[in-house]
Amino acid sequence: MTETPSDKPDIFETRESAVRSYCRSWPATFARSQGAKQWDEDGNEYLDFFSGAGALNYGHNNPAVMGPLVEYLQSGAVLHSMDMKTPAKREFLQTFQDLILKPRGLDYSVMFPGPTGTNTVEAALKLARKVTGRQHMLSFTNAFHGMTLGSLSVTGNSMKREGAGIPLTNSSKIPYDDYFDGEVPDFLWLERVLEDSGSGVDKPAAVIVETVQGEGGLRAARAEWLRALSDLCKKHDILLIVDDVQAGCGRTGSFFSFEEAGIEPDIVCLSKSISGSGLPLALTLFRPELDVWEPGEHNGTFRGNNPAFVTATAALKTFWADNEFQNELADTIAALHQRLDGIVEKAEGASIRGRGLLAGLCFEDLEVAEKVAAYAFENGLLLETSGADDEVIKIMPPLTIDSRDLQAGLDIIEAGVAKFAPAAAKAALA
Amino acid sequence: MTETPSDKPDIFETRESAVRSYCRSWPATFARSQGAKQWDEDGNEYLDFFSGAGALNYGHNNPAVMGPLVEYLQSGAVLHSMDMKTPAKREFLQTFQDLILKPRGLDYSVMFPGPTGTNTVEAALKLARKVTGRQHMLSFTNAFHGMTLGSLSVTGNSMKREGAGIPLTNSSKIPYDDYFDGEVPDFLWLERVLEDSGSGVDKPAAVIVETVQGEGGLRAARAEWLRALSDLCKKHDILLIVDDVQAGCGRTGSFFSFEEAGIEPDIVCLSKSISGSGLPLALTLFRPELDVWEPGEHNGTFRGNNPAFVTATAALKTFWADNEFQNELADTIAALHQRLDGIVEKAEGASIRGRGLLAGLCFEDLEVAEKVAAYAFENGLLLETSGADDEVIKIMPPLTIDSRDLQAGLDIIEAGVAKFAPAAAKAALA
Amino acid sequence: MTETPSDKPDIFETRESAVRSYCRSWPATFARSQGAKQWDEDGNEYLDFFSGAGALNYGHNNPAVMGPLVEYLQSGAVLHSMDMKTPAKREFLQTFQDLILKPRGLDYSVMFPGPTGTNTVEAALKLARKVTGRQHMLSFTNAFHGMTLGSLSVTGNSMKREGAGIPLTNSSKIPYDDYFDGEVPDFLWLERVLEDSGSGVDKPAAVIVETVQGEGGLRAARAEWLRALSDLCKKHDILLIVDDVQAGCGRTGSFFSFEEAGIEPDIVCLSKSISGSGLPLALTLFRPELDVWEPGEHNGTFRGNNPAFVTATAALKTFWADNEFQNELADTIAALHQRLDGIVEKAEGASIRGRGLLAGLCFEDLEVAEKVAAYAFENGLLLETSGADDEVIKIMPPLTIDSRDLQAGLDIIEAGVAKFAPAAAKAALA
Amino acid sequence: MTETPSDKPDIFETRESAVRSYCRSWPATFARSQGAKQWDEDGNEYLDFFSGAGALNYGHNNPAVMGPLVEYLQSGAVLHSMDMKTPAKREFLQTFQDLILKPRGLDYSVMFPGPTGTNTVEAALKLARKVTGRQHMLSFTNAFHGMTLGSLSVTGNSMKREGAGIPLTNSSKIPYDDYFDGEVPDFLWLERVLEDSGSGVDKPAAVIVETVQGEGGLRAARAEWLRALSDLCKKHDILLIVDDVQAGCGRTGSFFSFEEAGIEPDIVCLSKSISGSGLPLALTLFRPELDVWEPGEHNGTFRGNNPAFVTATAALKTFWADNEFQNELADTIAALHQRLDGIVEKAEGASIRGRGLLAGLCFEDLEVAEKVAAYAFENGLLLETSGADDEVIKIMPPLTIDSRDLQAGLDIIEAGVAKFAPAAAKAALA
Repeated sequence: MTETPSDKPDIFETRESAVRSYCRSWPATFARSQGAKQWDEDGNEYLDFFSGAGALNYGHNNPAVMGPLVEYLQSGAVLHSMDMKTPAKREFLQTFQDLILKPRGLDYSVMFPGPTGTNTVEAALKLARKVTGRQHMLSFTNAFHGMTLGSLSVTGNSMKREGAGIPLTNSSKIPYDDYFDGEVPDFLWLERVLEDSGSGVDKPAAVIVETVQGEGGLRAARAEWLRALSDLCKKHDILLIVDDVQAGCGRTGSFFSFEEAGIEPDIVCLSKSISGSGLPLALTLFRPELDVWEPGEHNGTFRGNNPAFVTATAALKTFWADNEFQNELADTIAALHQRLDGIVEKAEGASIRGRGLLAGLCFEDLEVAEKVAAYAFENGLLLETSGADDEVIKIMPPLTIDSRDLQAGLDIIEAGVAKFAPAAAKAALA
Repeated sequence: MTETPSDKPDIFETRESAVRSYCRSWPATFARSQGAKQWDEDGNEYLDFFSGAGALNYGHNNPAVMGPLVEYLQSGAVLHSMDMKTPAKREFLQTFQDLILKPRGLDYSVMFPGPTGTNTVEAALKLARKVTGRQHMLSFTNAFHGMTLGSLSVTGNSMKREGAGIPLTNSSKIPYDDYFDGEVPDFLWLERVLEDSGSGVDKPAAVIVETVQGEGGLRAARAEWLRALSDLCKKHDILLIVDDVQAGCGRTGSFFSFEEAGIEPDIVCLSKSISGSGLPLALTLFRPELDVWEPGEHNGTFRGNNPAFVTATAALKTFWADNEFQNELADTIAALHQRLDGIVEKAEGASIRGRGLLAGLCFEDLEVAEKVAAYAFENGLLLETSGADDEVIKIMPPLTIDSRDLQAGLDIIEAGVAKFAPAAAKAALA
Repeated sequence: MTETPSDKPDIFETRESAVRSYCRSWPATFARSQGAKQWDEDGNEYLDFFSGAGALNYGHNNPAVMGPLVEYLQSGAVLHSMDMKTPAKREFLQTFQDLILKPRGLDYSVMFPGPTGTNTVEAALKLARKVTGRQHMLSFTNAFHGMTLGSLSVTGNSMKREGAGIPLTNSSKIPYDDYFDGEVPDFLWLERVLEDSGSGVDKPAAVIVETVQGEGGLRAARAEWLRALSDLCKKHDILLIVDDVQAGCGRTGSFFSFEEAGIEPDIVCLSKSISGSGLPLALTLFRPELDVWEPGEHNGTFRGNNPAFVTATAALKTFWADNEFQNELADTIAALHQRLDGIVEKAEGASIRGRGLLAGLCFEDLEVAEKVAAYAFENGLLLETSGADDEVIKIMPPLTIDSRDLQAGLDIIEAGVAKFAPAAAKAALA
Repeated sequence: MTETPSDKPDIFETRESAVRSYCRSWPATFARSQGAKQWDEDGNEYLDFFSGAGALNYGHNNPAVMGPLVEYLQSGAVLHSMDMKTPAKREFLQTFQDLILKPRGLDYSVMFPGPTGTNTVEAALKLARKVTGRQHMLSFTNAFHGMTLGSLSVTGNSMKREGAGIPLTNSSKIPYDDYFDGEVPDFLWLERVLEDSGSGVDKPAAVIVETVQGEGGLRAARAEWLRALSDLCKKHDILLIVDDVQAGCGRTGSFFSFEEAGIEPDIVCLSKSISGSGLPLALTLFRPELDVWEPGEHNGTFRGNNPAFVTATAALKTFWADNEFQNELADTIAALHQRLDGIVEKAEGASIRGRGLLAGLCFEDLEVAEKVAAYAFENGLLLETSGADDEVIKIMPPLTIDSRDLQAGLDIIEAGVAKFAPAAAKAALA
């Protein structure tokens, strides 16, 4: 690598667009990474409780995926294949069928819509509209589904929505689970507008939902809420799309985040950790009866990213061939939440958000989360904030994190919370 | 790799969505690839005049990029980094600045909008609207810009447009160069609607254009037409976006396809071959004065795909550090077009389309192109069709193809054309 | 008038579009009308509790308006004047200012947006968007604002919405007063989405509301709900539009329907009875600070309908120069509601809807209202149904109805209700 | 009438919205009117070559319509009837059928869509979309169809379009006849985009056209152009809507403006002079096969304006029962155009626009038309300008104007043109 002497102007400052973001909170230059750790150019070590926003569920450079990847790249096999057949793609399909779909009793057609989360969401929305002949879409408050125009239309964040520069149309927003802090019966609004032909909310093609709102403040939908949503969709002949881009691939404790609720969505969006390695890959899954696409009606240059098929296959075989990984994961989840309980108990105005390893701590004082995240970075822990007001710290370590690293990271969080939201504050005020 | 005995049901048939497309025309399973060649599982060899729809400009598995890639992956460096700083990203930015921007006198901010072509187009459209405060957009007949909702709105193909399932709004279509076969002065329509405040075509934020319409039938805009378009945009204070996703990265003979015309677009979209390897990567370039993004206003999980930065850097250093590659490329282009001239001369109703190595043969008989493409596949040549009626064969070999492979591929094309569009037909009719 | 012998085909059947509607429920041909009565060609008499859907608040052919109208038409004065000045228009403006605005402490600019309800609503929506620079609009469940595209977008009825043939965009629906039968605190949803920058409901230019939903089932908003809505709008810098097309001009007991609540909307839409005669006329009123229109930016051929100015002026002078009419109206309202109380008491699953002389009876059994309306017609009373399921009978006699006619009409309603929703049904079931 | 002393503030200034427009060019207060003349309060006389923008084709207060109107209003007949049956409506339908439709061999269903031009256009657009299931619409450069959102979407004027405050979607603009001054074959663009499935212009439900663009600069489509448009629509199964709101009712010499071309539109919009008196009335006519409306799917309070039915019937019987009126009209048209020829001959950069009594004089010097119009007003002639730049004076006397008044008005025009665009200017420059 070329060295950049410290007296040279920083090319990130001079050349990269102002849209860059994470590098502002975390101004280090990250040179190496392994498992739950990263090191910057100066050799400083960081624990990573961010995990590529969910794209690195198996940690950085997991040998289980990196070995097959390098081997593949050295073999002369096909790297880029659009939607042509390759053995790597075949093996991925076979493995996904054998290890993921079949054991869960799921029969989904698999579409490769392009390699990113927003690609799979756009494909899902298009298919739902095509199948139903309806144009309207329902999404939830504080939802995040992506930055391209269709996905942005069903996203909640106002800053990101304004970035569209045009009105975002053809969808209505409905309240997510507990949006009214339990004050209102679940789905009161949704049920009424669907039953009332005068509601002015047009019958939607589909409802798109995240089981945990990764970007929208780590709210987690309860299993019974998801079941009621699924029932409501069935009752009204509306498709249910689960955007499992961030919450899927084991993040909440099971491969799909909706398994706990026992529901079977009509369409599922996967991306981020489906490649197992951080390489771009996305899938759109749907009931075979919905597979009404014309050949090539949706396409994309990078929908056949074979290195990602290879690492995806390796990850599935390594982690999902039996229950071992999932059991260990359950322990990690339990350990995390035990610590979070303790932290919250001693903190002022704090509450736990999220589910599994897609967890958060929310603070009534809107400034605490950013302070804790800054403190964490100073102390060698990468921790993102989430929510419309950045009022939540997002705790998303690799699923493969060992106990020591987990506890070390949580120690830093605990110290940060103690510093910026001490329970004493409450006492002092009383 | 797991073997799939021939008596087992084909998992591509049983599991992959009906949307799959190329695998229908080319039913082989491609196992290995190198340079301009691919081999299927049965060892059959194919010359590749398709080049991953422009994502493989330097051929398959080019050692110049694969070496650094494997080395990087083995080094423990960071694979996935969102928009954090990494040495690999820094080196890419530095190299892109030093080898591409500076020598061409271009000063563009660089945005990583997510790794695919449609990501960069969506970012370009958003930025143009944000900068100008205008909502309307102009695009050209037979344009192709991508499959997500914003990009699809500025795309021409009706089958793909209908896939949206909702009206595609906020843009108007204007005639591409030679849309009326020279019958009409250039930009007559555009000039009139811009000057006429009663035209009903709202003043646009930007015009988005491909210098060669890769998907829309290989029409190439003349340099003077592009200059006139650029002048018109400047005159009316409209941004000019060049979508160089397919035509860029050397495909037409220079790094950017607009260099020949001597224009300087306000915004440039790059993807496909910018990674040099077939790995997903995309850039949005724009004049620094246009860089009005809020941090994080547009984001995406895979905008920091470090393996792609590594191969991109390697490709730039290998091919664009001096003029050698570009000179060889000029020879290849000349050789190709010399042969095409000869083929057309002997064919019925055929004409040459495109520019550089983004070339095509268009046939008046709308069925010829598909027949020639099928014939080519049977004879070991991968050749795509293009255009609204698949009336054009698209000739897009790697830029690095050697003379023997080039001529071999062209021999097959010549034979196919001779078979399905013999000049004799003309004579016979006369 | 030309006679149509009964053996000739009915030209309404053979020539008028299938869109015709009231003539299906009331197949009579109405030849004469006076006050609260109409007579068909065969001399049958009908009491009119429909009042031209609110356009005939002062009854049919009220001498107080018809006299000046005929005199005006015979005088050689200007009938049609676009937005030129005429004495008739001046006198209307002066009278409206002196008798309506000033006594109520209101200072509104007066716009003539074209002569119908949907014209004034479209003008209001355009102005609100222009003033605020925001594009989104909020309207209520079961709202009715008109049939042109802008008004239809903020209307609730699904049958009418589907008539648009395109998606209705740029507005969200929010729950009207008591939409959840008291189960939910007022404005919980609206407050949350306005305060939550992640709600995905874009900040609106305005909220448009009817104080009583004339077409949407006669729901009446409580005064405190209207006040809270007004406060919420002020707090969030959102314009409040009251569509008083049906509920205004005395229908609820005061000239404007929002007077009881003591609020002052930013924009008010008037039409229907503003002309006092049934002639087409509409006004859009707004705070002078909002009057940012360019001359001619909104126009219309019939915005200067002088005969309507004349009857409007006459109606204002006759009925609104002092409190006498309003006091009599209060008595009529009291008499109506006293009878309705009695009717409901003896009926099965019935409840009173509406306010003032914009009242309704809602029945749990969705078929009752239509049966009662049909019964009423057979017995010489014109009575419309309302609501998404036609579940409400709409009781809207002229404001000028005398006690005898009022009681006579209510006798028919009482008999109809007793026939189709007898309380005995309850007893029988018990 | 109440007197307004000259020292009182003008209530039009203090109370009427800034959107008022004609009263700015013509600051008189018009008190009386008869035939082709109006008088202001001070007794000044004006010749009216404006005719209520086409709503007063039979002149002001034509006794042939005013007599029956007053008689009707004095008779106790029904004034306002929604879409109920009345004898007045029946007689109008019968008369329209007998005198207009039958003699022309036209079989149209008649819809009363609300009483204004924009109501009938909105109804036409809705019906075309409903019938075809297509959402896109085509309209022409410089078209004017109305100010409500649907009509505005197909209107050209940018100032009026911006008044919408939101993007106007779901339509594309195509060049009107002679938009390129004969440089381009007719319909080149339209034919190409319809035939090219890659054009990006979605197949429309309908094309909406004015045969003469009354607001857009008085361009008149040639008969052969209209025939070619009609053929093209038929060929591509696209509905043809003629907006005859301004050009219809005799204005161009025949009842419908499209009669000269011999075409039969699928849908026809009428308003303005259809009432014969300046009272608001509008019709939407369409082939009976297109009458797929649900009852009440489109409605409106003032669609049953009986006084307008009465005057409409009287006008039809007076002017269209035989050919006499049309023959006289032909003479008037001839006389007008003879004079216009002479005026243009002696003027600098002037050309004749329009057809029949919907004529204009267009000036190369964009300031001339406004100067001539101002001069005309000063000399007692009401003359409007038209066109995106107000570059045309619009000459639209009543169809019933006598020779003396016509010549007198033309004398003023001639003098104004001589003053502001003298041919001498040309000579002087030469």
